[in-house]
Amino acid sequence: MTTRPTFTPLPAADFSSAFPSSHKVYVDGPRGVGVPMREITLSGGEPPLRVYDSSGPQGVDVRDGLPQLRREWIIARGDVIEEPRLLADVGSVDRPMPPALVRRCRTRLRGTHPVTQLHYARRNIVTPEMEFIAAREGFDADFVRSEVARGRAIIPANVNHTELEPMIIGRHFAVKINANIGNSAVTSSIDEEVEKLRWSTLWGADTVMDLSTGRDIHETREWIIRNSAVPIGTVPIYQALEKVGGRPEELTWEIYRDTLIEQAEQGVDYFTVHAGVLLRYIPMTVGRVTGIVSRGGSIIAKWCLAHHQESFLYTHFREICEIMQAYDVSFSLGDGLRPGSIADANDEAQFAELKTQGDLTRIAWEYDVQVMNEGPGHVPMHLIRENMEKQLEWCGEAPFYTLGPLTTDIAPGYDHITSAIGAAMIAWYGTAMLCYVTPKEHLGLPNRDDVKAGVIAYKIAAHAADVAKGHPRAQAWDDALSKARFEFRWQDQFNLALDPVTARAYHDQTLPADGAKVAHFCSMCGPKFCSMELTQQLRAEAEKGMEEKSVEFRKRGEVYVPLPSGDPS
Amino acid sequence: MTTRPTFTPLPAADFSSAFPSSHKVYVDGPRGVGVPMREITLSGGEPPLRVYDSSGPQGVDVRDGLPQLRREWIIARGDVIEEPRLLADVGSVDRPMPPALVRRCRTRLRGTHPVTQLHYARRNIVTPEMEFIAAREGFDADFVRSEVARGRAIIPANVNHTELEPMIIGRHFAVKINANIGNSAVTSSIDEEVEKLRWSTLWGADTVMDLSTGRDIHETREWIIRNSAVPIGTVPIYQALEKVGGRPEELTWEIYRDTLIEQAEQGVDYFTVHAGVLLRYIPMTVGRVTGIVSRGGSIIAKWCLAHHQESFLYTHFREICEIMQAYDVSFSLGDGLRPGSIADANDEAQFAELKTQGDLTRIAWEYDVQVMNEGPGHVPMHLIRENMEKQLEWCGEAPFYTLGPLTTDIAPGYDHITSAIGAAMIAWYGTAMLCYVTPKEHLGLPNRDDVKAGVIAYKIAAHAADVAKGHPRAQAWDDALSKARFEFRWQDQFNLALDPVTARAYHDQTLPADGAKVAHFCSMCGPKFCSMELTQQLRAEAEKGMEEKSVEFRKRGEVYVPLPSGDPS
Repeated sequence: MTTRPTFTPLPAADFSSAFPSSHKVYVDGPRGVGVPMREITLSGGEPPLRVYDSSGPQGVDVRDGLPQLRREWIIARGDVIEEPRLLADVGSVDRPMPPALVRRCRTRLRGTHPVTQLHYARRNIVTPEMEFIAAREGFDADFVRSEVARGRAIIPANVNHTELEPMIIGRHFAVKINANIGNSAVTSSIDEEVEKLRWSTLWGADTVMDLSTGRDIHETREWIIRNSAVPIGTVPIYQALEKVGGRPEELTWEIYRDTLIEQAEQGVDYFTVHAGVLLRYIPMTVGRVTGIVSRGGSIIAKWCLAHHQESFLYTHFREICEIMQAYDVSFSLGDGLRPGSIADANDEAQFAELKTQGDLTRIAWEYDVQVMNEGPGHVPMHLIRENMEKQLEWCGEAPFYTLGPLTTDIAPGYDHITSAIGAAMIAWYGTAMLCYVTPKEHLGLPNRDDVKAGVIAYKIAAHAADVAKGHPRAQAWDDALSKARFEFRWQDQFNLALDPVTARAYHDQTLPADGAKVAHFCSMCGPKFCSMELTQQLRAEAEKGMEEKSVEFRKRGEVYVPLPSGDPS
Repeated sequence: MTTRPTFTPLPAADFSSAFPSSHKVYVDGPRGVGVPMREITLSGGEPPLRVYDSSGPQGVDVRDGLPQLRREWIIARGDVIEEPRLLADVGSVDRPMPPALVRRCRTRLRGTHPVTQLHYARRNIVTPEMEFIAAREGFDADFVRSEVARGRAIIPANVNHTELEPMIIGRHFAVKINANIGNSAVTSSIDEEVEKLRWSTLWGADTVMDLSTGRDIHETREWIIRNSAVPIGTVPIYQALEKVGGRPEELTWEIYRDTLIEQAEQGVDYFTVHAGVLLRYIPMTVGRVTGIVSRGGSIIAKWCLAHHQESFLYTHFREICEIMQAYDVSFSLGDGLRPGSIADANDEAQFAELKTQGDLTRIAWEYDVQVMNEGPGHVPMHLIRENMEKQLEWCGEAPFYTLGPLTTDIAPGYDHITSAIGAAMIAWYGTAMLCYVTPKEHLGLPNRDDVKAGVIAYKIAAHAADVAKGHPRAQAWDDALSKARFEFRWQDQFNLALDPVTARAYHDQTLPADGAKVAHFCSMCGPKFCSMELTQQLRAEAEKGMEEKSVEFRKRGEVYVPLPSGDPS
C-alpha cells in the first residue's frame, strides 16, 4: 500500500496584503467574546470605518484548526454531552489527520429536545449566538431572537461546528453571500479547496458550500469545517451517491440517513435537501428548453422514475427533521426543478416545487428546525419579482436563498455579471442570501481567480441591495469612499474599495508615481479637466463670493442666506 | 521644425478571430444597400442565428476610410451641396492626412430648411436611413419614422458622416450602448484611439463618444469619423476649452460656436451640450458629498460664477439649434449636475437640471433637431425608477441616455459591474441608450482590455433589458444558446457567447482535450454529476416509459395523455 502524501497547506490568504490599511478589531460581544470587524484606517483626520468581516481568525495553521469560539456556550446550555471521535470518524487510514483536529469532540443529545436556535428563540432565550450577531449587525439581541423565532431568519450553527463565528440569514439583516467550493471527479485537491475556503471568506463570503463530488469527500469536509469561521453547507445526496458508485437508482433511505448523520456529526451547518421534487412534477420538465439543471434534482428525479415512487427525501422528511434538530443543522430546501434557461423561468414545474417547499418548511418548523428556501437560477428581469412574492407567500417568510438569478443566457464567461444584475434585484426585493456565480459557471470548476471574481461581484450585489433596503450601516461605507474620492485622498479611496489592491493597480497603470497619489486629478481626464478639482475651486469661490455678499448685505442691515437653494447672483 | 511621425495604424481588430464561427451577411436594405448582420453558424442541423452587428466594414485600411454608404442618399435628397474641404480643415500642417481622407467633401445647405431625420419624419418622408434601421431591427419602416417624428427616437446621422451605418436610439427599439474613448493630456495617442473605436464596435458598441481633451483633438476626431460605421458623439466644450488654454472663464460664445461648426462639418453625429446648468442651480450642489462631477458641468459652472450670468449654452441655445439643424447633429443634452455618489442621487440640483433639459428639448424640437437626454450617474437601486419616470414626464419622452447608473460607490476597479446592475434596470424601465463604464472608472484612462470589459458588461445589461422588455428578436439568442448547452454542443455554446474565445478558454483551462468538446459533462460537476446528462437520460426513459404505458392503455382501450402535467405513475 502506498501512503498518499499528507495534506500540505498552501500559503495562507493574507489579510494584510489584501487590505493594506485595515486591521481587525473586536467589539464587545457576549460572555467576553469579541465580535470581529474590519477597521479601515483613513487619513486627513477622518475617523476609521468599521465594516462587517467574514474572514475569520488569521494566521492559524490549518493543521491546528480554528479556536473553538462557541464550545463553552454550547456546553453551558447543558443540552449536549461531548464525546471523543473515533479516528475512523475523522480521517482516512492511509492519510491520518493532525492530532489537533482529531481531538475535537462530537456531541450527543443529553435529553430529547431540539438544540436549535429556533428552539431557544421560541422559548424566549437569547443565546450567545444571537448576542454575537446583534453586535455584528448593529441590532438589538431580542430583535435577532424574534426574527429567528418567527422563522424569518436563520442562524446556521451546528453544535459540532464550534469554530463558527455566528451569522444570520434573514431579510431584515445585511444580505449575505455564499461561495461554492468543492472538488469534482475531474479536478482539484483538498489543499486547493481549503485554500478556496480561506480565500473566499477573506473577500467576503458569508457561508461556503462544499459541493465536493470526487474522492475524499469526508476528509475534504473535515479540513474545511475545522478551519471555517463561516457556516458550511453541503448537499448530502452527493456523498450518498458516491457511496453507491454514482448510480442514482441504487440510493436508499438508509444510505442517505447515515450520510446525514455522518455530516451532522462533523459539524455541517446546513443541508441542501431536494425534498420538493415530487414524482408528478417531473413530467412538467419534459417540454423545457433545458430540462432539469440541478444536480440534486436530477439525481432525485432519476431515482423517482426508476422506482416509480416519491423520493425518500419526501417520504422520510420527518425523520430528516429529527436528525437535524439534534445537531441544529438548518434546511436549505433545494430547488431541484429550478430553470436552467430564461425560457424555463417561472414555469409550472418550478412553482409546483416552490409550493411544496412551503409545505416542507412548515413541517420542519414543527421540529424547531431552521429553514431557508433555495431559488433560481435563470430568470429574466421582468420575472424576478414574482419569484420573491410567491416565496414569501407560500413559504411563510422563511429566508430565500437564490442562485443569481442570471438575467440572460448569452454570456458564458461573464455569468458573474449576468447574475449579479438579478442577484442585486432579488436581494432588494427581499432575498436574504445570494449564492455566487463565478465567470466559470457552465464551463468548468472555478479556480482562485474565479472565486474572487464571483465573491466581489456578489459583494457588490449584496451591498447595493443593503443600500436600497436602507440597512442602517450600509451607506456609511459609500459615503466614506465618495468623500475620500472628492477630497483626492487617493490612498483612502483605494483602502475603502472592496478590493484595494486592484483599485490601486488600475490607478498606477497610468500614473505610477507617488506624487499622483496626492494629485488633484487622474489620467482619465488629466489635470485641466478634473471636474472634482474644478468643483473644489468653485466651492471655494462660491463661499468667498457669498462671504462678500454677506459682508455687503450686513452693511445694509440684511441677512444673506446662501444655501441650499438660493441664487447667489 | 521636427516633423512628427505620420499615423501608423495598429493591427486591425479581427472579426474572424473574435467570432470564429460567424460571418457577416447583408440582408436586403434600401436602394440596394445591404444591412449587416452577424450570422453564427451552428452544428447539429440547427439553423444559423443572425444577430445585430455594429462592427462595421472589416479589413479596410484606416488610411482609406470606410465606404461612403450614405453619400448617394444624402445627395439624392437634394437639400445639401458638396464642396471640397481645405487641407487646413482636415489635418495639421506638420502631419498631413492621407489623400483618401482629404478628398471627402463637406456639405453646405442648398436651401434654408433643416436636413434632420426629424424634419423628414414629420413630413411623412421615410428616408433610406429609416428603411436601413427597419431592416436592421425587424420593424416596419413607417414605425421607425413615426417614432422619430414624435421625438421618441433619434437617428444620429450627420450629413457629413457618410460612412455611417444608420442606427436608432429609442425605447421601443433594442437598447443601445455607447463606449467612450479619447485621449487625455496625460496619456494615449491617435492610433490607440482609432484602434479603441474599432475594438469597441467589434464587441458591440452602438455609438462611440470621442472625449479627447489632449492635443490633436481635431485630427484624432477626423481619423475616428472617417473610420466609424457608428455615430460619433463629442462634448464640444472640451475642444473649446483647449482653445482658451484650459481657463473656463475665458470661454466665449464665439469660440464655442466656431467649435460646433468645425465639428459639425467634420461629421460628428451628436453633441453633448450642458445647457441645463443654470446659475441658480449651482449653489444647490454646495452641500453635496461630491459636488459637480461632470467635466462639462463644472466648466460651465465655473464660467457662470466667474461672469455671474447664465451660460452661453443657455442664452444662445436657439443659435445652437440652428447650427445643428443644418447638419443633422443630434442633441445629447448633458446632465452637468448628475450625482457623483449615491448620497447625492435624485437631489434638488439634479432634478432642477432635468426639468430644464425638458424645456430645452421642446425648443430643439421647434428647430426639427433630434434630442436625447443624458442621465446619471450614481443612483442606488431604489431611486432608479424615479429618474426614468421624471425624464419621461418632463422631457416629452425624448430618449434617455444614462451613464450606468452605479448602484454603489464602494467598488472602484469593478464599476463596470456596479453600474451594469443599474444600467440593466433603467434600460428595462425605458432608457434607450446606456453609456458604458469600464473597470478603470474613477481610476484612469481605460486601455484595450478595459474597453472590452466595459462593452461586454453593457451588452449584457442591454440584452437583459431587451429580453425583459420583450424586444421581438431578443430571446431567440438566449434560447439558441441554452439549447446548445443542453445538447452538449459545446462549440455552438462557445460560438453563441458574447465573447466566444473567452468562453472556450475558460472551458479549456480544465478540459483542454478535443474530446471534451463533445463530452456530456464539464469539469464543474464531472461526468457522474452532470444534471443535463442525467436529464437527457431521464427524458429518454420517461418517453420510453410513457410509450409503454401508452401501449398498455391502448390494449385496454384507454387514451394516455402524458404531458404536460400528468403523473406518469
